[in-house]
Amino acid sequence: MSASRPHVPNLREDSVLPSRVKEGGRAILAPVVRLAMALGLTPNSITVIGLGITVVAAVLVGTGWLLVGAALLTAGSLLDAVDGALARATGGATAFGSFLDSTLDRAGEAILYVGIAAWLVASQPEPLWPVLALLVALSGSFLVSYAHARAQGIGLAADVGLAPRTERLVIVIAGVALAGLGFVPGLLVALVALAVLTTATVIQRIWHVWRLSRTAALAKEEN
Amino acid sequence: MSASRPHVPNLREDSVLPSRVKEGGRAILAPVVRLAMALGLTPNSITVIGLGITVVAAVLVGTGWLLVGAALLTAGSLLDAVDGALARATGGATAFGSFLDSTLDRAGEAILYVGIAAWLVASQPEPLWPVLALLVALSGSFLVSYAHARAQGIGLAADVGLAPRTERLVIVIAGVALAGLGFVPGLLVALVALAVLTTATVIQRIWHVWRLSRTAALAKEEN
Repeated sequence: MSASRPHVPNLREDSVLPSRVKEGGRAILAPVVRLAMALGLTPNSITVIGLGITVVAAVLVGTGWLLVGAALLTAGSLLDAVDGALARATGGATAFGSFLDSTLDRAGEAILYVGIAAWLVASQPEPLWPVLALLVALSGSFLVSYAHARAQGIGLAADVGLAPRTERLVIVIAGVALAGLGFVPGLLVALVALAVLTTATVIQRIWHVWRLSRTAALAKEEN
Repeated sequence: MSASRPHVPNLREDSVLPSRVKEGGRAILAPVVRLAMALGLTPNSITVIGLGITVVAAVLVGTGWLLVGAALLTAGSLLDAVDGALARATGGATAFGSFLDSTLDRAGEAILYVGIAAWLVASQPEPLWPVLALLVALSGSFLVSYAHARAQGIGLAADVGLAPRTERLVIVIAGVALAGLGFVPGLLVALVALAVLTTATVIQRIWHVWRLSRTAALAKEEN
């Protein structure tokens, strides 16, 4: 997933998902990774298959098959963790693989939001505020990742934040599933929560990078 | 603007805007840079002021003041080039400044699209396809910048592409201005053009990074 990321220690880790849940997820992955190895799949081909699954799920969501879409997204998200695990298991982690994985992760997130927007505009009598919340949530998600990548580009780690990708996916999939069960406000709450959490995370990351670069500048002056 | 970017030569430069137009823009900037220096403004404060102008313009666009919004956006875009020029002129270019500038550039782009979406949903009888085109254009714009930042993170330059930021801004401002003059299809054409151009640029950049990393890997094997 992030083979090229410099190993800079995180100052804080405030994720809204307990690390135990993440470890459980990783345990489920082991047999899938072995299957992928047996089939001779490369990490990059799994990345592309994952994007394909997200496209199908987004079309399902956009055309009103919310529960099926949510189920497929869950499967796709688990698969998404497989590429990195497979790369590590086979020693095939490359800088291009890491670049492709994170770029297509963002593309998948965007495609999912396009599907949700299509459903909202087509099905809701008053889609204005839901669509604006969705736009802020999508933009916020992108900015969280962008700030991370940009900080990495200047040699700093901006790993802090309440809303990294896994957490965002859990929230949006839960919202889609609730809407699929007939409880549309659940999706709206999820979108507003994502809009708030991602915006807060972006501000947190900018602040964090400012502090890190400040510390680095002071350390330089002292030497 | 990109003080920390490694100086890797571009393999191609296929921008849709002639370089003469860009040089003309830079000539206009010189007196503004001198004014900012006289006022004692720092590059980072200009970056933040630029974002503030974009927020006001987005609110104007969202509430139907399209022509005023387009005019303000044009002024804001020129100002956006000032921070980098000022940083170079005063020797105050910092890694954090470059990080802040590009992160807030993306935020500004997103905020503008939120304004356009608000206007579309509130004013158009059939907003479905315009809103989806807008979402793809916004996501594509983000991905163009994200792929660039991510490539930079692994030490490669992904500067190729038909739709870098200045070009995207010219197209979207022209679309907003046309809609403000009463020709709404002009805005829709601009959004669809941006969706296509940015998607093509993302694919171009992924392909480009793949080739660069391939060449780097081969060079390593030969040594």
